[in-house]
Amino acid sequence: MVRHTETKAHTTHKRTKRYVQRIKDRSEKAGQAPESLVSPPGATGTTQIRIVDYDARTFNEAEAQSIEECGTYAKTPTVTWINVEGPNTPELLEAVKQSFGVHPLVLEDIATTSQRPKVEVFDDYVFIVVRMFRYNDKAATVEEEQVSIVLGKNYVLTFSEGHNDAFDILKQRISSNEERLRVTGPDYLAYAIIDVIVDQYFAILEKLGERIELLEDQVVTSATPSTLEEIHGLKTELVYLRESTWPLREVIDRIEEAKTPLIKASTHPYFRDVYDHTVHAIDIVETFRDIVSGILDIYLSSVSLKLNEVMKVLTIIGTIFLPLAFIASVYGMNFREPEVASEWGYPAFWLVTAVIIIAMVVYFRRKGWILQSTA
Amino acid sequence: MVRHTETKAHTTHKRTKRYVQRIKDRSEKAGQAPESLVSPPGATGTTQIRIVDYDARTFNEAEAQSIEECGTYAKTPTVTWINVEGPNTPELLEAVKQSFGVHPLVLEDIATTSQRPKVEVFDDYVFIVVRMFRYNDKAATVEEEQVSIVLGKNYVLTFSEGHNDAFDILKQRISSNEERLRVTGPDYLAYAIIDVIVDQYFAILEKLGERIELLEDQVVTSATPSTLEEIHGLKTELVYLRESTWPLREVIDRIEEAKTPLIKASTHPYFRDVYDHTVHAIDIVETFRDIVSGILDIYLSSVSLKLNEVMKVLTIIGTIFLPLAFIASVYGMNFREPEVASEWGYPAFWLVTAVIIIAMVVYFRRKGWILQSTA
Amino acid sequence: MVRHTETKAHTTHKRTKRYVQRIKDRSEKAGQAPESLVSPPGATGTTQIRIVDYDARTFNEAEAQSIEECGTYAKTPTVTWINVEGPNTPELLEAVKQSFGVHPLVLEDIATTSQRPKVEVFDDYVFIVVRMFRYNDKAATVEEEQVSIVLGKNYVLTFSEGHNDAFDILKQRISSNEERLRVTGPDYLAYAIIDVIVDQYFAILEKLGERIELLEDQVVTSATPSTLEEIHGLKTELVYLRESTWPLREVIDRIEEAKTPLIKASTHPYFRDVYDHTVHAIDIVETFRDIVSGILDIYLSSVSLKLNEVMKVLTIIGTIFLPLAFIASVYGMNFREPEVASEWGYPAFWLVTAVIIIAMVVYFRRKGWILQSTA
Amino acid sequence: MVRHTETKAHTTHKRTKRYVQRIKDRSEKAGQAPESLVSPPGATGTTQIRIVDYDARTFNEAEAQSIEECGTYAKTPTVTWINVEGPNTPELLEAVKQSFGVHPLVLEDIATTSQRPKVEVFDDYVFIVVRMFRYNDKAATVEEEQVSIVLGKNYVLTFSEGHNDAFDILKQRISSNEERLRVTGPDYLAYAIIDVIVDQYFAILEKLGERIELLEDQVVTSATPSTLEEIHGLKTELVYLRESTWPLREVIDRIEEAKTPLIKASTHPYFRDVYDHTVHAIDIVETFRDIVSGILDIYLSSVSLKLNEVMKVLTIIGTIFLPLAFIASVYGMNFREPEVASEWGYPAFWLVTAVIIIAMVVYFRRKGWILQSTA
Amino acid sequence: MVRHTETKAHTTHKRTKRYVQRIKDRSEKAGQAPESLVSPPGATGTTQIRIVDYDARTFNEAEAQSIEECGTYAKTPTVTWINVEGPNTPELLEAVKQSFGVHPLVLEDIATTSQRPKVEVFDDYVFIVVRMFRYNDKAATVEEEQVSIVLGKNYVLTFSEGHNDAFDILKQRISSNEERLRVTGPDYLAYAIIDVIVDQYFAILEKLGERIELLEDQVVTSATPSTLEEIHGLKTELVYLRESTWPLREVIDRIEEAKTPLIKASTHPYFRDVYDHTVHAIDIVETFRDIVSGILDIYLSSVSLKLNEVMKVLTIIGTIFLPLAFIASVYGMNFREPEVASEWGYPAFWLVTAVIIIAMVVYFRRKGWILQSTA
Repeated sequence: MVRHTETKAHTTHKRTKRYVQRIKDRSEKAGQAPESLVSPPGATGTTQIRIVDYDARTFNEAEAQSIEECGTYAKTPTVTWINVEGPNTPELLEAVKQSFGVHPLVLEDIATTSQRPKVEVFDDYVFIVVRMFRYNDKAATVEEEQVSIVLGKNYVLTFSEGHNDAFDILKQRISSNEERLRVTGPDYLAYAIIDVIVDQYFAILEKLGERIELLEDQVVTSATPSTLEEIHGLKTELVYLRESTWPLREVIDRIEEAKTPLIKASTHPYFRDVYDHTVHAIDIVETFRDIVSGILDIYLSSVSLKLNEVMKVLTIIGTIFLPLAFIASVYGMNFREPEVASEWGYPAFWLVTAVIIIAMVVYFRRKGWILQSTA
Repeated sequence: MVRHTETKAHTTHKRTKRYVQRIKDRSEKAGQAPESLVSPPGATGTTQIRIVDYDARTFNEAEAQSIEECGTYAKTPTVTWINVEGPNTPELLEAVKQSFGVHPLVLEDIATTSQRPKVEVFDDYVFIVVRMFRYNDKAATVEEEQVSIVLGKNYVLTFSEGHNDAFDILKQRISSNEERLRVTGPDYLAYAIIDVIVDQYFAILEKLGERIELLEDQVVTSATPSTLEEIHGLKTELVYLRESTWPLREVIDRIEEAKTPLIKASTHPYFRDVYDHTVHAIDIVETFRDIVSGILDIYLSSVSLKLNEVMKVLTIIGTIFLPLAFIASVYGMNFREPEVASEWGYPAFWLVTAVIIIAMVVYFRRKGWILQSTA
Repeated sequence: MVRHTETKAHTTHKRTKRYVQRIKDRSEKAGQAPESLVSPPGATGTTQIRIVDYDARTFNEAEAQSIEECGTYAKTPTVTWINVEGPNTPELLEAVKQSFGVHPLVLEDIATTSQRPKVEVFDDYVFIVVRMFRYNDKAATVEEEQVSIVLGKNYVLTFSEGHNDAFDILKQRISSNEERLRVTGPDYLAYAIIDVIVDQYFAILEKLGERIELLEDQVVTSATPSTLEEIHGLKTELVYLRESTWPLREVIDRIEEAKTPLIKASTHPYFRDVYDHTVHAIDIVETFRDIVSGILDIYLSSVSLKLNEVMKVLTIIGTIFLPLAFIASVYGMNFREPEVASEWGYPAFWLVTAVIIIAMVVYFRRKGWILQSTA
Repeated sequence: MVRHTETKAHTTHKRTKRYVQRIKDRSEKAGQAPESLVSPPGATGTTQIRIVDYDARTFNEAEAQSIEECGTYAKTPTVTWINVEGPNTPELLEAVKQSFGVHPLVLEDIATTSQRPKVEVFDDYVFIVVRMFRYNDKAATVEEEQVSIVLGKNYVLTFSEGHNDAFDILKQRISSNEERLRVTGPDYLAYAIIDVIVDQYFAILEKLGERIELLEDQVVTSATPSTLEEIHGLKTELVYLRESTWPLREVIDRIEEAKTPLIKASTHPYFRDVYDHTVHAIDIVETFRDIVSGILDIYLSSVSLKLNEVMKVLTIIGTIFLPLAFIASVYGMNFREPEVASEWGYPAFWLVTAVIIIAMVVYFRRKGWILQSTA
Repeated sequence: MVRHTETKAHTTHKRTKRYVQRIKDRSEKAGQAPESLVSPPGATGTTQIRIVDYDARTFNEAEAQSIEECGTYAKTPTVTWINVEGPNTPELLEAVKQSFGVHPLVLEDIATTSQRPKVEVFDDYVFIVVRMFRYNDKAATVEEEQVSIVLGKNYVLTFSEGHNDAFDILKQRISSNEERLRVTGPDYLAYAIIDVIVDQYFAILEKLGERIELLEDQVVTSATPSTLEEIHGLKTELVYLRESTWPLREVIDRIEEAKTPLIKASTHPYFRDVYDHTVHAIDIVETFRDIVSGILDIYLSSVSLKLNEVMKVLTIIGTIFLPLAFIASVYGMNFREPEVASEWGYPAFWLVTAVIIIAMVVYFRRKGWILQSTA
């Protein structure tokens, strides 16, 4: 059991560690020019650029060597999805600036992978930052990653820190001729990407929900110190999750309100839809917070109740045997007690003892102590 | 008593289980095309389509075999209420799309029966999602169900997961010639449906109110661990109820504000009225939350008070008998105590014992310990 | 003391009972036509209709037999106040509809005496619902009642559940020629009625304030379990009071903003004034909630402190006498202890005992235990 | 120490008493005509009217016998400050009405000295109510008083319940030729009065801050039951302070927004400045509330920790001496124990005793109990 | 350990002391003319004026003897940054008034170094107050300082209480030809200064985050009373930090909205960016508050759990040895017990003893007490 506790603590601790690490990455930029492009401190691995280029009739998939190569695709009237996975090197970002003409601040936001969800509408493109979640089953913790989206006239640029299975599935949906995706433009693709990300919130919430279900069961039947760890772990996850979902609501709301020709009127209901999903996810997070804090109350109360039970046992034993021990000691004194001389002394002693015990038991039963301690 | 506790825990646990199940249903859609129509995972049973077709003079009721059949009714100038009960198969939804021309996203929302309350105003119809509650007396828990409403020019489409007695009563009100219902159009029918659903909130709140009343009584006179279970159960119900009622307020507000010819000016006061009812229900939910959390405080305090009482008993016993036992032991030692030799030794011993006991009782009475422990 | 506790619990319990009863009354309407007029379930007694008809020069007071009779008064240019007290029968409400032409929903709101405060502005009249409070000194609880006000061109209709002394005083102010009341129109009368009702909030708050004052005094000097009851009772009253006062603020604000010729510009400062009073009452309710929850903290802390004190006594006694009892037992063993043989054995035993007791007392005094336990 | 506690409790109690007294004064008006002018119930002493009349070049100070006298001053183009100190008799207020033509509701607000801060803009004058605070060092409590300000074309009327030193200082600043005060008009004077009042909030907050500082120090080193009293006292003061400062923010905001020629554009930055100060004061109040509630947490935790420490001592003693006492008793039994016969029995007994004691001490030290109890 | 505790307490105490000191500085101004310029009470040291004057091609750095000297620089079309470090004497501020024509209230705000963050837009300049933080590693506490910024047509004036390393780095960025800084005007410089200050918030949050990380680890494995101190210390820091960051959000929002030609359209995205950073910092502060208050819950629960564990040990010992001691005493009585006469008496006694001990151990193991106490 001790081990279990340590594991849990370790997990929560690691969650906070990762959160603080992000702040560190963010804070190390202090003092630099606002648009300075540095590799994120902890980033390793190589960067992969995947291109998906399609319209109603054609579909091409390719792996690009450089951003410049992508620029050519983006200029064609077909929809081009350029997905950059892995750390963003200054060179790569410089190339993005050259090929797509994005604002230096946007590049900085792409490079700093600890951004708050945001949207920035420019004349030629819309820049969106969202946070993606993934449930790590082994560590029983939520992993978080930034996805930056640049929606241009004929292209969608996405930057993510690692490889996303969800993006593969989306690509497959495009290639398998899903009608609306193929017919509509890049705004719909941008929506589809955000929708896929928001859908994963529900997967996370499902996992947390299952843990809450288990916890609710456990807290009643068999609360242990590790239950407390689990409560704290869940609370912490929900706090971090909350911080990332609340701003998303505002972001999608602002995308909808933005008067930009880049997002067609026909795509608006879809953004409205993903907005509803986000709000739903936020509602669930808030509900879970309430439930978990209710579970903590139950836990604390059950600890108090157990203490009461423990103390009742001690008090019952003490109240019965302390007076009895006193009586027994009395007749062990060196005085010549008249009772000792009597023939009926010894049986009388046991009678008194029995009477005291029975009286006490009756008294405690009336007070509900014995009943409750066995309940 | 143990059994009672388990039952309660089971109930709360099942409530959370159902809630998490809904999130699971929702999350399983992740990765699919946004408009993909799949049967809800847990849905079973057959789907029934009931038609009520009426105007000021005529009234027809029929059971339809298919949605296409309903389309014919809907085209006549009479008001047609098509009530679909049971799981929504993809085929059925496809037929709805063909016959009534609703947006694919609307179909998806109808299919996913774990939606947040919402309203979407289109040119030809208004789409409304509300959540209906039913109190399960046996399980002492609240059951929840989604009702989707499509308000068109001459028709109202409703989709619910199961059969609603409340809808039967409404149908009867139409057939029994209730004036306003027969004279007014489908917008009034849509209002009447929502009104019936909101009215049931008060039925739920009444049941919860009764449980709170009982709890308030119990917590003072006879709090047991199962009381704590009941407090947690009520808190949980209220948290879930809250999540479903708050958005409804916004939904009805937006129906009122919507500038659509589908809702006539004369129906607006009715929507205003149901809005007021919703806000009232929310107020009651919040008030109940405050009351229940006050009851928890009382419960926790009474646990502490009982611990105090228990400890006072032990302390009184210990404080009286530990010194006495010591004295008795002293005169049982192998030393030749001069007191033992004295003739008055033994009576003197009992005198000292009596003095100590009386002094202690007086002392504790002055401190209010004995008075309080019997109060 | 036991009795006192039960009384208090009974009171709080009854308060919640009344609240739940209102929800029941409300919920029993479920499934009925929205405008169906049924007598409120619990209402008994006869209905009284009093008419006060006045202008700057004339003043008439009468008891009407029927609403139709009142209609005649209302048509004259003098201000007519029709005060209906007691249960509203469907016949009476039907007569109101015929004579004053109010909307069916308004009639329903008048009939359902568990409404949330609201205002509805129609072309010919303004409909206002407020909640009136009365402090029941015997039961030490707040009683609540709905007052519905219909402000028409030349008349004010009021419906209340019982007889109000406050209305009598207002009538007297009219009859005794209070200048402004006589000169101004029905809008000022409506204001005066609301003002009288809001003024009573302060009377309620005064009573609760006195109880809080008492409680604050008590919690320090002599907290008993009944103190906890009183804290819960006050918290509960404040929660219910809050639910009724918050919406009133909005109601009066909307009266002020309403662009209706029924309320003259010269009356606006008066509504502004009663708005300020309402906000002040709300402020006091919130302040009281904060104070009472502070008192609960003090109470809980003092319970913990008392437990500490109790345990210190036991620990001091145990720590002194358990070792001593052990020593005494040692010299009661059957071994032939060398100390027993010694002449100085017995005095030495008492010396050791004294040293241990003194050492312990000094130790506990240094630790602050003995000092604090007597403080 | 007992005495100290009582004093503190007394102080907090008196604070609440004064607060409730104000509600009583307010509530006694119930049932009266809204504009009825009655002397405040508790008011005693005589009323003083001081006039300060100045412009850039002239400065006159006088004590007026009646309000009528002041009217003459007010009509001259010089700035006239009429400061009425003490209870407002109906005659005095009637004179104010005659001379300055203020609305009856304003007079009522001046008479009722328990108003919420408010501002009312009329054509000819602006009416402002603010609450002034004074720290009573002896009673260690905050005293509160209403200041009503009527800002007219050439005059400022102020009504306060008692004499304010702060107003004397302001008068001195005028007489000592402070440039801006002499050159600018009555709007600047009104600002200066409000500024002086808001400045005193910081004096109050300074005093409370010092007490919080002390408390933070005390709670760690030497928490006593009186510490709890002090925490409650501070919390209560902050709750009352908060109720008075929040509305002031709104009041000053509304003065700024008011489009009245009585407040010149050049005075606006000054009102903006005093607005900033008010918001700052509110921020500090909220921060103090957070800090004090953090201190309460520390206090409660330290009580629990001390209980732990107490119980550890008892448990250590009990765990060591209960088994030992049992063993000693065994060899005091009437059985003929073989160990007693042995020569090595008695030394062996002491050896066993020593081993048990040492083992227990080592065990508790490992568990961290002994270390912690001395820490 | 005791020492450690004291140090921590000392630190928190000092933090509150500094906060209260600021209120004192602020409150000592009470009663003075609003624009009176007095040296801040606690300020010492000399004031340094540094000038950085640059445009795209030129760069000059100088130390000025007086403000008048700076005025000359400011009039040239090059961007001039005048950085005043140290206490602001009345003479200096008077010179600022003469040379730059700022409003007297602005001078007062510069002089009072305990301002709330604010922005004031004038025709010729924009006045901004922000609060700067610095983490004092030695004292493990956050230090706070006011930075006042006056943004004019060709110049930026900054006033800070001490020397800022961050400003040196910014100067270096200018001198090292950072493109955007050199090309753009004073509005960009003002942005860069605020950006540098906000960046430091993340450095502070990183430090606090590390402490929270440590705390989360500690609270599980080895909570001591000093842990409680650290929790309180962190909570306090976060409360103070929160008070300073929330208003900044509003300030930057108002800078963006201000329609002043002093801030060019091209600079707006930068202010938007620093706004996002501020909001992010606020989010982190709120998240940290939630986490720390979760840790406090864990701490309190673990204290309760430990008490349970302690009490279980005592109860187990008491429950086993009190009855045994009673039995042993019985056979030490002066009665002639028949069992003593029996040959098997003594072995039987030990058998009974063993049976009782084993039964108790089994019983407690079943109850989970012994398992848990060793877990």
